[in-house]
Amino acid sequence: MPEKQRVCLAYSGGLDTSCILAWLIEKGYDVICFMANIGQEEDFDAAKEKALKIGAKQCYIENVIDEFVRELCFPAIQCNASYENVYLLGTSLARPVIARAQVKVAQKEGCQFISHGCTGKGNDQVRFELAFYALQPSIQVIAPWRIPEFYETFKGRNDLLDYAAKTGIPVTSTKSKPWSMDENLAHCSYEAGILEDPNTSPPSDMWKLTADPILSAPNEAEDVTIDFEKGLPVKISSPSQGTKTDPTELFLAANALARKHGVGRIDIVENRFIGLKSRGCYETPGLTILRAAHIDIEGLTLDREIRALRDQFVTIGWSRVLYNGLYFSPEREFLEASVIESQKSVNGQVRIRLYKGNCIVMGRSSQTEKLYDESESSMDEIGSFEPVETGGFIKVQAIRLKKYGQMKAEKGENLL
Amino acid sequence: MPEKQRVCLAYSGGLDTSCILAWLIEKGYDVICFMANIGQEEDFDAAKEKALKIGAKQCYIENVIDEFVRELCFPAIQCNASYENVYLLGTSLARPVIARAQVKVAQKEGCQFISHGCTGKGNDQVRFELAFYALQPSIQVIAPWRIPEFYETFKGRNDLLDYAAKTGIPVTSTKSKPWSMDENLAHCSYEAGILEDPNTSPPSDMWKLTADPILSAPNEAEDVTIDFEKGLPVKISSPSQGTKTDPTELFLAANALARKHGVGRIDIVENRFIGLKSRGCYETPGLTILRAAHIDIEGLTLDREIRALRDQFVTIGWSRVLYNGLYFSPEREFLEASVIESQKSVNGQVRIRLYKGNCIVMGRSSQTEKLYDESESSMDEIGSFEPVETGGFIKVQAIRLKKYGQMKAEKGENLL
Amino acid sequence: MPEKQRVCLAYSGGLDTSCILAWLIEKGYDVICFMANIGQEEDFDAAKEKALKIGAKQCYIENVIDEFVRELCFPAIQCNASYENVYLLGTSLARPVIARAQVKVAQKEGCQFISHGCTGKGNDQVRFELAFYALQPSIQVIAPWRIPEFYETFKGRNDLLDYAAKTGIPVTSTKSKPWSMDENLAHCSYEAGILEDPNTSPPSDMWKLTADPILSAPNEAEDVTIDFEKGLPVKISSPSQGTKTDPTELFLAANALARKHGVGRIDIVENRFIGLKSRGCYETPGLTILRAAHIDIEGLTLDREIRALRDQFVTIGWSRVLYNGLYFSPEREFLEASVIESQKSVNGQVRIRLYKGNCIVMGRSSQTEKLYDESESSMDEIGSFEPVETGGFIKVQAIRLKKYGQMKAEKGENLL
Amino acid sequence: MPEKQRVCLAYSGGLDTSCILAWLIEKGYDVICFMANIGQEEDFDAAKEKALKIGAKQCYIENVIDEFVRELCFPAIQCNASYENVYLLGTSLARPVIARAQVKVAQKEGCQFISHGCTGKGNDQVRFELAFYALQPSIQVIAPWRIPEFYETFKGRNDLLDYAAKTGIPVTSTKSKPWSMDENLAHCSYEAGILEDPNTSPPSDMWKLTADPILSAPNEAEDVTIDFEKGLPVKISSPSQGTKTDPTELFLAANALARKHGVGRIDIVENRFIGLKSRGCYETPGLTILRAAHIDIEGLTLDREIRALRDQFVTIGWSRVLYNGLYFSPEREFLEASVIESQKSVNGQVRIRLYKGNCIVMGRSSQTEKLYDESESSMDEIGSFEPVETGGFIKVQAIRLKKYGQMKAEKGENLL
Repeated sequence: MPEKQRVCLAYSGGLDTSCILAWLIEKGYDVICFMANIGQEEDFDAAKEKALKIGAKQCYIENVIDEFVRELCFPAIQCNASYENVYLLGTSLARPVIARAQVKVAQKEGCQFISHGCTGKGNDQVRFELAFYALQPSIQVIAPWRIPEFYETFKGRNDLLDYAAKTGIPVTSTKSKPWSMDENLAHCSYEAGILEDPNTSPPSDMWKLTADPILSAPNEAEDVTIDFEKGLPVKISSPSQGTKTDPTELFLAANALARKHGVGRIDIVENRFIGLKSRGCYETPGLTILRAAHIDIEGLTLDREIRALRDQFVTIGWSRVLYNGLYFSPEREFLEASVIESQKSVNGQVRIRLYKGNCIVMGRSSQTEKLYDESESSMDEIGSFEPVETGGFIKVQAIRLKKYGQMKAEKGENLL
Repeated sequence: MPEKQRVCLAYSGGLDTSCILAWLIEKGYDVICFMANIGQEEDFDAAKEKALKIGAKQCYIENVIDEFVRELCFPAIQCNASYENVYLLGTSLARPVIARAQVKVAQKEGCQFISHGCTGKGNDQVRFELAFYALQPSIQVIAPWRIPEFYETFKGRNDLLDYAAKTGIPVTSTKSKPWSMDENLAHCSYEAGILEDPNTSPPSDMWKLTADPILSAPNEAEDVTIDFEKGLPVKISSPSQGTKTDPTELFLAANALARKHGVGRIDIVENRFIGLKSRGCYETPGLTILRAAHIDIEGLTLDREIRALRDQFVTIGWSRVLYNGLYFSPEREFLEASVIESQKSVNGQVRIRLYKGNCIVMGRSSQTEKLYDESESSMDEIGSFEPVETGGFIKVQAIRLKKYGQMKAEKGENLL
Repeated sequence: MPEKQRVCLAYSGGLDTSCILAWLIEKGYDVICFMANIGQEEDFDAAKEKALKIGAKQCYIENVIDEFVRELCFPAIQCNASYENVYLLGTSLARPVIARAQVKVAQKEGCQFISHGCTGKGNDQVRFELAFYALQPSIQVIAPWRIPEFYETFKGRNDLLDYAAKTGIPVTSTKSKPWSMDENLAHCSYEAGILEDPNTSPPSDMWKLTADPILSAPNEAEDVTIDFEKGLPVKISSPSQGTKTDPTELFLAANALARKHGVGRIDIVENRFIGLKSRGCYETPGLTILRAAHIDIEGLTLDREIRALRDQFVTIGWSRVLYNGLYFSPEREFLEASVIESQKSVNGQVRIRLYKGNCIVMGRSSQTEKLYDESESSMDEIGSFEPVETGGFIKVQAIRLKKYGQMKAEKGENLL
Repeated sequence: MPEKQRVCLAYSGGLDTSCILAWLIEKGYDVICFMANIGQEEDFDAAKEKALKIGAKQCYIENVIDEFVRELCFPAIQCNASYENVYLLGTSLARPVIARAQVKVAQKEGCQFISHGCTGKGNDQVRFELAFYALQPSIQVIAPWRIPEFYETFKGRNDLLDYAAKTGIPVTSTKSKPWSMDENLAHCSYEAGILEDPNTSPPSDMWKLTADPILSAPNEAEDVTIDFEKGLPVKISSPSQGTKTDPTELFLAANALARKHGVGRIDIVENRFIGLKSRGCYETPGLTILRAAHIDIEGLTLDREIRALRDQFVTIGWSRVLYNGLYFSPEREFLEASVIESQKSVNGQVRIRLYKGNCIVMGRSSQTEKLYDESESSMDEIGSFEPVETGGFIKVQAIRLKKYGQMKAEKGENLL
């Protein structure tokens, strides 16, 4: 008897991937389920039990929290990553470590195929699959929501429920929320359903991670200090969280603080990689604080021209690359080397005050970096250069502008 | 008897420019004073009286509020202007209209010279003088704080007070604040003095324009709607401000709302054009709201690729140009044409909630722009393209990444 | 009897598209053939006759030469377009006008379908189809070389010859060249076949448009003058071509001159939009001269900062957009408006000497633009600014660098 | 008796710096002369003798050729450096190593001052002094051509000749050329004098380094192969030059080849850092060949996206930084790290044919890099991906463009 072909399925325990699991088995595959523990709230044991009950050969639960913080969230802080001015890439950051862990399981289990439950219109299918292909070029992807036979069979939730009933998939009686969510240690996203109307305000009971800045955040502000070395957070201290230095613990402390004070909510209409616009609501609590502190400490410690080049090319480039699912790519490697190179002098401490959605910079200092010099910058002291020199600076800058003014005048285009 | 040479002095009524006025007269110039009314709190009549008393031949007070809003603040909103991620350019935006009004007065009065009281280490001297030179290439600038004879005589406030006493300049008994301020319709800046230590938190009584988000902003949120046409705000409505459509009135309404709810404070260590770092605290109330709303409506109405190009070169370019005082320049003209071109489709309405420092987007809509399509973006509907196509999209994107993965493997650099 | 579905096929008269024509008819379509006259050497009448003989309902021959020159080649000159430093986009420039003419024919003839003979790995399929979809979003594309049924039937030239014999398609006995060519008024490309080895030198009898710079270009140099207005060539004069001012005639004169003197050959390994590398050899005679002259006149007439912004964003952006087939797109519209804005001052004359592959700038002048000023730039004259001022310019620039040197020294990183 | 102050003067042996030497001595300084041997044609011994005769305390001749090639010319090749599309930075590249050698001599000799003979309108003063200030922030610069006392005394060549006669400075009877020149191992520049009219063609006897492509270059072409490792040339071979692998020898061989075949002439109106336009003629023989070969090998071996990022920000950034004299700066360090990171895969061989000013790429290959795959790129083979996939790629790319077409149609803006 010929051996069955093996597929490694990214399994969530939910209705969709449970039906996919059953369907794959029905199609004749041996299915190995894979779950990533990336900090989301989840009953992993129940999900595993369910997978095995449905017929999975195995169900792996891989903890990728530490690598998520160190390899993705921290570089995002280092380069002030954001997409389209607003989105902090919370979902995008999680995909590379999940995909990598899944490929490892697929390889260990000798799977020729890899599968997921992403829809056929979103960014995540792209992010997962581009990672799969880079990590194992020979892998074959089964994306049921892009296979007409599958999506024409399962046209809505009811079809899935019918199939679950038919194939004995346990269904929790929980009423499905009128939006879909995706959570990891850094963030939670809310999309689809009632949110598809971009003019519908997110209901206040939607937000899961953060206190409501208006309704429930505490009336007392809280001060936090964050220390950076080479652009990476190395210590966080606050009354309620104490002091943390381990990357994951530090990140969790930042999360706890931001969640308590309602910091980090986003509502955006963004442009997906596949060319559609979509509306997303996101909570990115800790990352919001750490990023704001990082931007601030760069003001004190980073050279102007490096900052300008980094802002214009590296920040924008790295963010776009991550958003588009190109983490495992030559360009990400290249950009990340530039990020690291830019951060050599980003050493110092930032003091932040948190209060009802606000993340207010209260001050910053650096023991080692001396680019800022109070007496030199002071308007009241002469410092190391003679003000008279600035006249020459201005006159030379003006050479080109005088020509411009003259040409305008000659052409009768009055600037006044 | 030969005619005296004439100088047009940017006069503020304060100690510094009063001494400069007296000193210029002492040096043998006829001095025409110039004040711009750009929305700052100021007793213009008292200042004028003082100037004439000291010996100015004339004192002009020019209202530049409308042109400031229309020609500077509105383009800044249109291109989401910011410098070094944080600073909204409040001071920089004011300089071009002030400089232009001053050159007009200088020309009207036949002045060969133009003068100001800016220090020799700051950005403002550059901004004013580059504008002067572009607007009238033949003009000659007298910058006393860069003239050794002047700055070596007036080494501190006491020297100025002595000189005032000696020359009969009236001095108000107001105790000088331990920082310097500059205000206009869009913003107020706080610099120098105790703020020169970047780790000193701004005292809460320093902030002049905005309610304290923690201590004094109201406990009730307020909702605002802002309408945009071609990227420009054309209507604002809120319970407390009613509806405004005139640019200046609209801007003032945005200011009033933001001031009331404590929106728009900034604290930054920035890189000056002349290469020094300096610490500035800024309040930019209305602009903060209008800019946030503009960024949001672009999400709904602006094409992805135009947005990306605009973010990376126009926004950054226009902001840097304004910060560096290059408003009257070929590059600003060029960039502004690109801004306008980019905004043709930016038409729609944004709903904002203001609350204790927060400016929360609640929703957005557009009657005319249809780039966003709910059913098409919906994960639950098929819409106009077949999900099966995305597989090809991903496979083609993966061609390059598979090569990358293969090369890595061949070179023994494991991606896993 | 139901009406047949109609398809508009881009027809070349060659073996491939003749077989596609027959195959489409076999599949039950009414086929309207379309040929663009874009300046290539072609026996259009013979091709038309062949199409009708095979069974086309109609065969349109549309002359798009003038719009090709004015709408594509001229903007390419205005923005110094090139892809990956070397390729002048000869093929890419032709696609938009061809696609537009074909959609017009398709609409006139009521075709629901549109078809072409491009392969499934190249750039041209992308360029044509993206144009089709933008110009008529409802159009349906039939790309036989991407349809397994078709490409699995026709695996090589012999399968096509067999099919031609079987279906009575006339086949010329001409031996096929060991590479494929594509020609238009601006260029000829050579790809595939023996050229796929990137280390194989192009045989000297391959090049069709230009004299061999080594073997056959004349021993006498020839001088040309080219006049520009707003960055567009408006006059060309040379001994052998006389004076031309009409865009197409001017372009043809530039072509004739460059072809005679062996100017404009390119050999490159480039990166296709679909992620494969490919080797191409190209001749772009006239465009090479006009672009070189344009770059030169910009030196004399364009402001430094506009030039820098244009080079970094607009030139690179426009070129990439064209290469990737995104002519009919929001971003091309946006970029082209920036191109035009940048060129307002690009007015003047360039003198060029052509000789055996060389295109040597001999001098340039402008009657209207005065940004260059001999006496001011002269090292021997003082001109309008005092050299002493430059000291201040340098000292202020040095503020940041002195800090850099100090920090390096403090950290023990010796710059010396 | 107090010790005299010491100044280290960049001395050339010519009339200008000889007069400066005498003038500095007259002003009471002890003067240490410094000459850099950077490959220019020069009688160093005679110059040294002259310096000592005039009264220099010492005259150092420092050979900086090797560091010039390795630290400046090679990185320039690695990043395809050019300024304003045309200028290969020949002069700019030399300045950092000369300035560094001079600062070392100044330090060794305990000089508080450093001096040079650059004019007050050019780029070189900026380049030298910014390097001086970064390398030794405390150094004081004496730039006589910016000191009114000096330049008002020496208004022209005759004043210098009079002063030379008066102070016994030996003057060679050589008639001065009607332009000024600056030479180093990589290039020779021609500026000023008759060249200040941008429409004056350079006389054919002006060019010093290269054979005239029209009048004197040989009638026989010569083939060269150049090998690259990590983007750096590591071997050059040709019939006339044999094989060289040492960086300086390799560079000299490239020079010899290019000089013989008339390769590397440039004529440009460029924008100086100080805002003036100026006309320069340059010969950069070897660098032209090596850069062309490097651009070509990148086509075969460099990833598309790294190339695009590198072209748009690193190449342009590094070139501008070098042109503006900012070699010793944070941003150059940052950019150079990015250059090196980008070049890891740039390994291979390029074959070039030289003929009368032409530098023709004949082919290229790489033993190690496999990004290019003949069979995969082949139009005649299926390779590793199914052409059918490209349909999906195009359809997804078209989503955005169809919306664009629809919006255009709705707004009555016909694209056809």
